[in-house]
Amino acid sequence: MSFDPKRTIAELKELRLLTGDENGAQRVAWTDTWLRARAWFAEKLAGLPVEQHYDSAGNNWVTLKGESDQALLLGGHLDSVPNGGWLDGALDVMAGLEILRGFNASYNGRPPVTIRVVDWADEEGARFGRSLLGSSAFAGTHSIEADKARTDRDGIRLEDAVRRCGFEFARFPEAAREQASAAAYLELHIEQGPVLESLGLPLGVVLGTKGVERYAITFHGQEAHSGSTPMAVRRDALAAAAKLALEIRPIARRHPDAVCTMGSVKTFPGIVTAVVGRCEATLDQRDLDADVLARMFAEAQAASERFATEEGCTVEWSRIWNIEPVPFHPHLIELCDQAILATAGVSHRLPSGPLHDAAEVARAGIPAVMMFVQSLGGISHNRIEDTKEEHLEMAVTALNDLAHRTVDWIRSRE
Amino acid sequence: MSFDPKRTIAELKELRLLTGDENGAQRVAWTDTWLRARAWFAEKLAGLPVEQHYDSAGNNWVTLKGESDQALLLGGHLDSVPNGGWLDGALDVMAGLEILRGFNASYNGRPPVTIRVVDWADEEGARFGRSLLGSSAFAGTHSIEADKARTDRDGIRLEDAVRRCGFEFARFPEAAREQASAAAYLELHIEQGPVLESLGLPLGVVLGTKGVERYAITFHGQEAHSGSTPMAVRRDALAAAAKLALEIRPIARRHPDAVCTMGSVKTFPGIVTAVVGRCEATLDQRDLDADVLARMFAEAQAASERFATEEGCTVEWSRIWNIEPVPFHPHLIELCDQAILATAGVSHRLPSGPLHDAAEVARAGIPAVMMFVQSLGGISHNRIEDTKEEHLEMAVTALNDLAHRTVDWIRSRE
Repeated sequence: MSFDPKRTIAELKELRLLTGDENGAQRVAWTDTWLRARAWFAEKLAGLPVEQHYDSAGNNWVTLKGESDQALLLGGHLDSVPNGGWLDGALDVMAGLEILRGFNASYNGRPPVTIRVVDWADEEGARFGRSLLGSSAFAGTHSIEADKARTDRDGIRLEDAVRRCGFEFARFPEAAREQASAAAYLELHIEQGPVLESLGLPLGVVLGTKGVERYAITFHGQEAHSGSTPMAVRRDALAAAAKLALEIRPIARRHPDAVCTMGSVKTFPGIVTAVVGRCEATLDQRDLDADVLARMFAEAQAASERFATEEGCTVEWSRIWNIEPVPFHPHLIELCDQAILATAGVSHRLPSGPLHDAAEVARAGIPAVMMFVQSLGGISHNRIEDTKEEHLEMAVTALNDLAHRTVDWIRSRE
Repeated sequence: MSFDPKRTIAELKELRLLTGDENGAQRVAWTDTWLRARAWFAEKLAGLPVEQHYDSAGNNWVTLKGESDQALLLGGHLDSVPNGGWLDGALDVMAGLEILRGFNASYNGRPPVTIRVVDWADEEGARFGRSLLGSSAFAGTHSIEADKARTDRDGIRLEDAVRRCGFEFARFPEAAREQASAAAYLELHIEQGPVLESLGLPLGVVLGTKGVERYAITFHGQEAHSGSTPMAVRRDALAAAAKLALEIRPIARRHPDAVCTMGSVKTFPGIVTAVVGRCEATLDQRDLDADVLARMFAEAQAASERFATEEGCTVEWSRIWNIEPVPFHPHLIELCDQAILATAGVSHRLPSGPLHDAAEVARAGIPAVMMFVQSLGGISHNRIEDTKEEHLEMAVTALNDLAHRTVDWIRSRE
């Protein structure tokens, strides 16, 4: 089987038919549908001179041994959110397999370096709320104690769901053994945003995944009667929050790729006849540059204090979650740019707002890069998620080009 | 018994002991505690040459027949919200009784005009959500069909709760008969707001009750991923709502007594990782001047359209409720001002944001006015509701002065 990007599209459609329904993809990790997807994928390996095994965290490794033990890793994930799209995650795995087939054909089963395709377990965290589970175990950033007792909606524990699929949660850290000889990591993904589409571009080089600061912010004012309390004496917690909701936008816009989002606002007592006494909001800030992220956080916090004072309120911040930015490897970024230029004639560099398994791999110190392909309408995690077939074909072609350039680079470093 | 405002305070304390607990007053209309309050009030009439009866809507009328059938009405309500204050409503009734006692003593049981004290039924609407129930029946503005099927938390129907107290909902409209010979209506009430306290004044003349326009406003934008959606392409429904939350303040402040309140904001999907796709808010606007109210409404609506456009959103308005402003009688306002000046040396005119029974009486075409006494901290509907005793005493004295001036005025019109 020589390299054929059209086959990737055909196989993705096959997978959609097998594991989707009228509401979209249903390949939620640790479910029967997900296992069916993995069994289907295993059948695709028939006839290839590869070694396949699941590591102790449930990641699926397909290895085509090369002249060198140094390995090029091509990763993705077959798991989806419930009612998800046909491409998110699966495109990456199937493109990796196609590229492995190409190396096998071109080098008669013995490429210059080892080629490994990895299907990460539970990237989405859709059922237990813990995303990047398998790749975290691989990278050693996964804290098992905190996660094993997680439960799904039916009260089933993550530990038990994992055991049912043949894995032991306690042995997840052993997945780090797969890092041995990993020389580089490539991942193709749909953009899940509108940037490439708005620029009319099929492909982009991902500079890294943005760091995230996620906070709960509470303004405390004074509940008061809407009829009898003059405007001048009000201590309106909503007004302070409204000012912040608007101020985070210039704070973000001072930096080219930064985003700040107030996604939730709750008012208390929250009735039509009372001035808001307490307002709870959330703030999600993201940027690829840790300094920018820190500055945006400081600016938002200072602004919130100022608005609280202006409105006779007080404000409290409490961190929900945060993660540092993960920049991808500078040389791989250059190679990815070259591969895209060679395939599409035009390239673009952009950060990723959403997290991806590639971030965990990069945190483990393995040179990594991602390539984005345009998403129609920027929509993902939805059955209407889609990408033009010509763009999918270009994406698999460009990733293959990048894989060959990366193999050369790995050899040059030996 | 000659007129003695100190007795009013003593009786209010007696009533508090009888019908309150550690959480405050519990005289919720149509409950046993409310009936106990009314029975206690009936005992206070012993020895007075008055006629007492309940009208068909449950309002309690105590009549001291005068030389003229033309009647001065002194109104209030013994019912309270659950965990309410000791003064809201009861002060008005007990002050009325004290003034009636004074007229009886001064005129040997035969004042120049008839003096009637009325304890309105269910002013608060605390249990069934329909305030000013008894006074609405009196004024003929009450729509029985819409209210009789109302239920409380336990599913008990208003109609049945009323029957248990000896009244028939179907006969409520007959209460309008009590309008006959009503020449003027006076009501004393705690301010329930901070205006008099902030001015350091004990008493104020109420110009009328403000009209209210109450709307639900929904901004529709586009839900989007907080990580992958650049700031420039967002259609953030919260941003549009935040602009409106801030804009209603200058809209209100252009008019001296106007208020605009956004009391509730709800965000959808309302999660930390999504730009707000839909934002539901409430707006409550009040002013004593119908033109000002109409202008404020038009300004808020225009502003919301402008903000929706700026943010790539659409906006919908739907009316929750409204009521026109009810101005009090111009001559009674003058008399009230004079009575306050005579008692306290200084007066102030202010509108009422909250509604009162006096508004229903005025809507029935009966000349009416209210007097406010300072509320500590502007707090009501709470066990900590309080007013300095010296201010309560001044209030009862000033209301008595006003009653005498009003009697003279009624006679002058005969």
